[in-house]
Amino acid sequence: MKIHNDLLLRVAKGEKTERPPVWLMRQAGRILPQYRSLRASLSGFKELVETPHLAAEVTLQPVDELGVDAAIIFSDILVIPEAMGLPYEMIEKKGPFFPNTIQSSKDVSNLIQGENAADELGYVYQAVETTVRELQGKIPLIGFAGAPWTIFSYMVEGSGSKTFSKAKKLLYADPVVAHQLLTKITNTTISYLKRKIAAGVNIVQVFDSWAGILSPAQYETFAIPYLKQICAAITEVPVIVFARGAWYALEEINKLDCAVIGLDWNTPAYFARQKLGNNRVVQGNLDPCFLYAKPEELVKASQEMIRSFNGHHIVNLGHGVYPDTPLENVKAFVNSVKAFRY
Amino acid sequence: MKIHNDLLLRVAKGEKTERPPVWLMRQAGRILPQYRSLRASLSGFKELVETPHLAAEVTLQPVDELGVDAAIIFSDILVIPEAMGLPYEMIEKKGPFFPNTIQSSKDVSNLIQGENAADELGYVYQAVETTVRELQGKIPLIGFAGAPWTIFSYMVEGSGSKTFSKAKKLLYADPVVAHQLLTKITNTTISYLKRKIAAGVNIVQVFDSWAGILSPAQYETFAIPYLKQICAAITEVPVIVFARGAWYALEEINKLDCAVIGLDWNTPAYFARQKLGNNRVVQGNLDPCFLYAKPEELVKASQEMIRSFNGHHIVNLGHGVYPDTPLENVKAFVNSVKAFRY
Repeated sequence: MKIHNDLLLRVAKGEKTERPPVWLMRQAGRILPQYRSLRASLSGFKELVETPHLAAEVTLQPVDELGVDAAIIFSDILVIPEAMGLPYEMIEKKGPFFPNTIQSSKDVSNLIQGENAADELGYVYQAVETTVRELQGKIPLIGFAGAPWTIFSYMVEGSGSKTFSKAKKLLYADPVVAHQLLTKITNTTISYLKRKIAAGVNIVQVFDSWAGILSPAQYETFAIPYLKQICAAITEVPVIVFARGAWYALEEINKLDCAVIGLDWNTPAYFARQKLGNNRVVQGNLDPCFLYAKPEELVKASQEMIRSFNGHHIVNLGHGVYPDTPLENVKAFVNSVKAFRY
Repeated sequence: MKIHNDLLLRVAKGEKTERPPVWLMRQAGRILPQYRSLRASLSGFKELVETPHLAAEVTLQPVDELGVDAAIIFSDILVIPEAMGLPYEMIEKKGPFFPNTIQSSKDVSNLIQGENAADELGYVYQAVETTVRELQGKIPLIGFAGAPWTIFSYMVEGSGSKTFSKAKKLLYADPVVAHQLLTKITNTTISYLKRKIAAGVNIVQVFDSWAGILSPAQYETFAIPYLKQICAAITEVPVIVFARGAWYALEEINKLDCAVIGLDWNTPAYFARQKLGNNRVVQGNLDPCFLYAKPEELVKASQEMIRSFNGHHIVNLGHGVYPDTPLENVKAFVNSVKAFRY
């Protein structure tokens, strides 16, 4: 399908444009009153993820409300462990919880993987199809998955954690089992992303949310090789890799065959450009808390950020937008980017 | 008092030594069976912090058991907000909780500060005096405090947080109030550290545990100036500044008038040396999860780390030791450092 506003895709491919495209991580979520009211009528977060027409509805909510240059399919990175045979619950105000976790080679061998696991996620592909149909080619639709290390960290730890020390322990204490699990996650992620692409997403983002808790040596051993496999396998659409906190591995990430590299808000533009070069397409990276500032300060900061990256840049925050962010500030941010000209 | 093993102090002053000194953040804690059994007999964590002879006992436990080159007084960074008039509870398995938080200029003006606040912490100075007496000059005693930004983040947020978005929000939404609070915390911290020094600590460490969640611009505005005041004020003993996650601000931190810069485990030695120079004394930075590896791998990694920093280096982990770390691995780590020769 022809995309009318294809600014994001053109920048991802390396084209120069008169302004950067803009979207926000978690733009489909609690910042929108229409999301909050729909969510309140449901049994829980997972009902929203697993009901295709609702996931599509929520995906579309920010499109007109915010005027962003891309939609991102509403879903959860943890659908992958569940499809592999490790179910989870989403506990209100606490986050994900896995009643069972992976600790041994036997646990890994009990998991299904690849196409068989991807078969379990029909509701995601249906949500993508519905969204694509309703978007009518207005803007691109982004699909996503967690990076293997991040998915691994939840499957071993069993929940969110400040340190993920149980997950990291397995890397040091039993690297063979760790690689077995990472391989199965990677195979599944590739199958899953290919199905999402077949269903209609125009670009995909891989979120390595817990990259920042690994040491440089561990990231090189347990994260980079699997990201490399994913980037090599996904040839149909551009791939964005966002490894939060992996400033120390930017040179390794730069070698990946991906179209775009996401940056968190810690990473100064000069540092990113020094490690990645001026022509690498980057995405980010305003501190999400800047959206609590006065709109005029926010607009100034957003324009400074755009100038500091100096092109080959997709504007976003350096992290998902926080739920209590004032909606008028989100709009001021998006509008300031759309008014910008290089 | 003459210190018999003064390796840590000599390295902190820039002297060359035949091996680096070694101690571990949280060495007085749950890794030791004697700590766990004492702790189990008490009503809670705060009883331990607030009872001088118990705090001293726990401080001394690792000295012979581990053979480290320094003791660090057992205490908590959150005694400072409490002394300023903002009490907290330590909730088992959850962490600190402040029933009241700071949100406005009026809240800040209700806080006491400086010498008046430092007066409230007699139990800490008594614990230091008891410890110094019992150490008999065997090794140096380290005193510590939280950095102003980290203390601020708890006082505003009210508890630990993944994002500290409430604390960060105040920086953006009301920078005047933020600076008022940071000033009061800084004044109190200086008075408090001077009392600890008068009571007998030989060196102090300032922990900026939440440095990593600020953007570079915010760190420069809301953290560096207050660290600078502390470093300028503490002239009696060497100061270690450990700003976890502040890799992006290492050049600013390098300008502080402190003796030692602590490094987290994300920060490669080559990067630290590039930003700080070869003669800057650094402390760190093995990944605490490396202590879950086989002892022979751990020893190899610890020696590689020592070589990579190439002198002017105090060996430590890049974070506090995790409670479930096998004691024999902690000992293998300490012993491997003590056996090392440059």
